[in-house]
Amino acid sequence: MKRREILTAAAGVAAASVMARPAIAQGRPKLKWRMVSSFPKSLDTSFGAGVFLAKRVSELTEGGLELQVFAPGEIVGGLEALDAVSNDTVECCHSVSFYGLGKDISFAVGSGLPFIFNARQLQAWTFEGGGLNLMNEFYSGFNLWGHPCGNTGAQMGGWFRKEIATLDDLKGLKMRIGAMGGQILLRLGVVPQQIAGGDIYAALERGTIDAVEWSGAYDDEKLGFARVAKYYYSPGWWEGGPMLHFFVNLKRWNDLPASYQAALTSACHEANNRMLAQLDARNGAALKRLVGTGVQLRLFSKEILDACYNETMKLYDELSAKNPKFAKLYASINAIRGDMLLYQRIAELPYDSFVYSRSSGR
Amino acid sequence: MKRREILTAAAGVAAASVMARPAIAQGRPKLKWRMVSSFPKSLDTSFGAGVFLAKRVSELTEGGLELQVFAPGEIVGGLEALDAVSNDTVECCHSVSFYGLGKDISFAVGSGLPFIFNARQLQAWTFEGGGLNLMNEFYSGFNLWGHPCGNTGAQMGGWFRKEIATLDDLKGLKMRIGAMGGQILLRLGVVPQQIAGGDIYAALERGTIDAVEWSGAYDDEKLGFARVAKYYYSPGWWEGGPMLHFFVNLKRWNDLPASYQAALTSACHEANNRMLAQLDARNGAALKRLVGTGVQLRLFSKEILDACYNETMKLYDELSAKNPKFAKLYASINAIRGDMLLYQRIAELPYDSFVYSRSSGR
Repeated sequence: MKRREILTAAAGVAAASVMARPAIAQGRPKLKWRMVSSFPKSLDTSFGAGVFLAKRVSELTEGGLELQVFAPGEIVGGLEALDAVSNDTVECCHSVSFYGLGKDISFAVGSGLPFIFNARQLQAWTFEGGGLNLMNEFYSGFNLWGHPCGNTGAQMGGWFRKEIATLDDLKGLKMRIGAMGGQILLRLGVVPQQIAGGDIYAALERGTIDAVEWSGAYDDEKLGFARVAKYYYSPGWWEGGPMLHFFVNLKRWNDLPASYQAALTSACHEANNRMLAQLDARNGAALKRLVGTGVQLRLFSKEILDACYNETMKLYDELSAKNPKFAKLYASINAIRGDMLLYQRIAELPYDSFVYSRSSGR
Repeated sequence: MKRREILTAAAGVAAASVMARPAIAQGRPKLKWRMVSSFPKSLDTSFGAGVFLAKRVSELTEGGLELQVFAPGEIVGGLEALDAVSNDTVECCHSVSFYGLGKDISFAVGSGLPFIFNARQLQAWTFEGGGLNLMNEFYSGFNLWGHPCGNTGAQMGGWFRKEIATLDDLKGLKMRIGAMGGQILLRLGVVPQQIAGGDIYAALERGTIDAVEWSGAYDDEKLGFARVAKYYYSPGWWEGGPMLHFFVNLKRWNDLPASYQAALTSACHEANNRMLAQLDARNGAALKRLVGTGVQLRLFSKEILDACYNETMKLYDELSAKNPKFAKLYASINAIRGDMLLYQRIAELPYDSFVYSRSSGR
C-alpha cells in the first residue's frame, strides 16, 4: 500500500475525529518515516536525542508515527541530511541548521550565531521572541519545517597544540572549525579547515592542522584530542549554546494530523531538555578526567575575544546589507537581545558568579 | 457515568491496542480532570503555563484527557493544591513543590534549594542526575506524582524600603518571604512574614512590613511594589531558578494509559520551556520600565551573601542529620553539583560574562 492509500484508509477508520483539518490530516494514520541523524552513533547525547525523539513520538501516537533513525552514511551523509529532507528522499532528519549555510547564511541563525545568545537566551528568542515562526518562514523556502531538538550548552573553545596568547598567534593557524566561527577567524588570519569528525584526530596527530574545535568536554573526550593537543581553551564563543534541530519535509509536515504535529513538537522539547541535561550532568566529570591526563585549561585573552567580537559584529552588518533574509532574522534578534541580556546580567550573573565562587569549597 | 465506567467503555472500544499495560490502562479513555492552579490568573506566565499544558495535552490525546484549569480559590486555595490532589479532591494541580514543606522540608528540594542550582542546573539534576525519580519516590508517600512544569529563572532579591548594606541592616527587618529563604534569613535576624500575594502591597504601603520578595521584574511589576519600596535587590539567592510542578494523584497517574503519561510528560517539558522563555523575553523590558519610575537597583553585599550562604549550608547539614528523606535527596544533589558547577564556571561563565560586557554597546 502506498503512503497516500495508508493515509486514506486510516482517515476512514477514524471518521469520528472532530478536528477542523483537511481530510488527509484527520484520524491516526499509520506512518513510518525515515529519520537521518547528522551525528555519529558514538555520541549518545546528540545521536541519542534523535533516538529518544523517535521513541517518545511512537508512545505519544500509540505507534501511529514511527521514526526509524539512521546514522550518517546509512542513507546519506550527515551533512546531506537537510538536502535529503528538502527533496523528500527521507521524510525527516535530526541535524544542525547551520549545516545549510552553504545554501543561505541565514541557516546559521537557527542554531545560534556567535556571541549572540547562550542556550537559554536562544530558546527565549525562538519560543517567545518570534524566532520559531521566522525561522520556519525561512525554512519553508527549502521545503523544510524545523524545530529545536537538543542543545550542547556553551561549548569549549577547542584544542590547540600551542598556547594562543595574542592575535599574532592566530595568524596562519590551521584550525578545524566550521560554520560562522571559521568565517570570523579567517578575518583574523586563521586558516579554517573543514574536516569530517572521523578524520580530525589523524589530521591533528600528523600536524596537518594545529587546532580543532568540536564540542564540550564530554563529547570531545570521546574523540581523543587530548592525546595530541594539550591546550584546551574557553569559551567557545562561536557556539555559546548551539541548538540542534528536527527537520521535516514541509509537505509531509502540513499533511500530518494536528495530534501528530503536537506530538513532534512536545517530544522535541523533551528531547531538547534531556540532551542539555545529559551534557550538563556529564561535562564536569569528563573535564576532570581530561585535566587528570595533563590537559591545560586556558581562557582566550580579552584582546582575542574583543577582536573576534568586533569582526563578528562587522560580519553581521555586512550580511544584513546584502541578504534581506538574514537582515530580517537579525533585526528580530536585536529587538529582544539588549533587554534580555541586561536583565540576565543583573539577575542571573550575580547569582551564578557568587555560587561558583563558593561551591568549590563545598 | 462514573469514571470507572467511562474507562471500561473506552477500553472496550480500543480493543486493538497492543500496549502491555493493565486492562484499565489500555486504549484512549475519555477523562476530564480538574486542575487547580496555585498562581493568580493575572500571572500569564505561571498561570498561563497550566493553561498551555491543558491545551497541549488535549491536542496530544485528541481530546482524550481534558484538564480543566481552576484559579486559586475556585475549588481550594492556591496553597492547598497539593493536599487537594493528595486526597483526590481534584485529580491534579499546577503548583510549587515547596508549598508542601510544612508536611516535610524535603518538598523544598523539588523546586530548588537556595544557593544550590540555577534553572538549567536544576533541570540537569532532575532529568539526568536521578532527581526526578528520587523526588517521585518521596512524593509517592503523599499520593503524588510530580513533574517539572515551568521555571522563573533567577529571581530578584526583593523590594526594600531602605538600603540593606550590612548584616546589621537585616536585624529586625520585617520581610514577606516564604519557604527556605525565610528560614535562613530568620537565623540572621530577619522577621519573615507569610502574606498571601493579594495582601502584600497593602502591608508594604502601611509599613506593616519593610520588604518583600516575590519573583522577577515582569511578575513583580504587575503587583506594583515599586510605588512603595524603591530599592530593588539582586540576586534572589533563595530562588536561583525555581521550578514549578505539575502534580497528579498517584493512583490516577498509575491508572493512565502509557500514551497519556507520555503526553503529560512531554507537554510539561514544553510548558516549562515556554514559561521560562516568556520571562526571559519580558523581564528586561519590565526592569527598564521600573527603573524609569525611579527604582534603584542594588546588589547584596558580599558580607550579606557570604553570611546567608554559610547559614544555608549549616541548615542543610542540620536537616540532613535529622531527616533521612532530605538527606537522601541532598546527597544525590551533592554527588553531581560540584562537577557540574565546575564545568559551567569554565565554559558558561566566561562566555556569558564577556557577552554581557560587550552587548550593552550593541
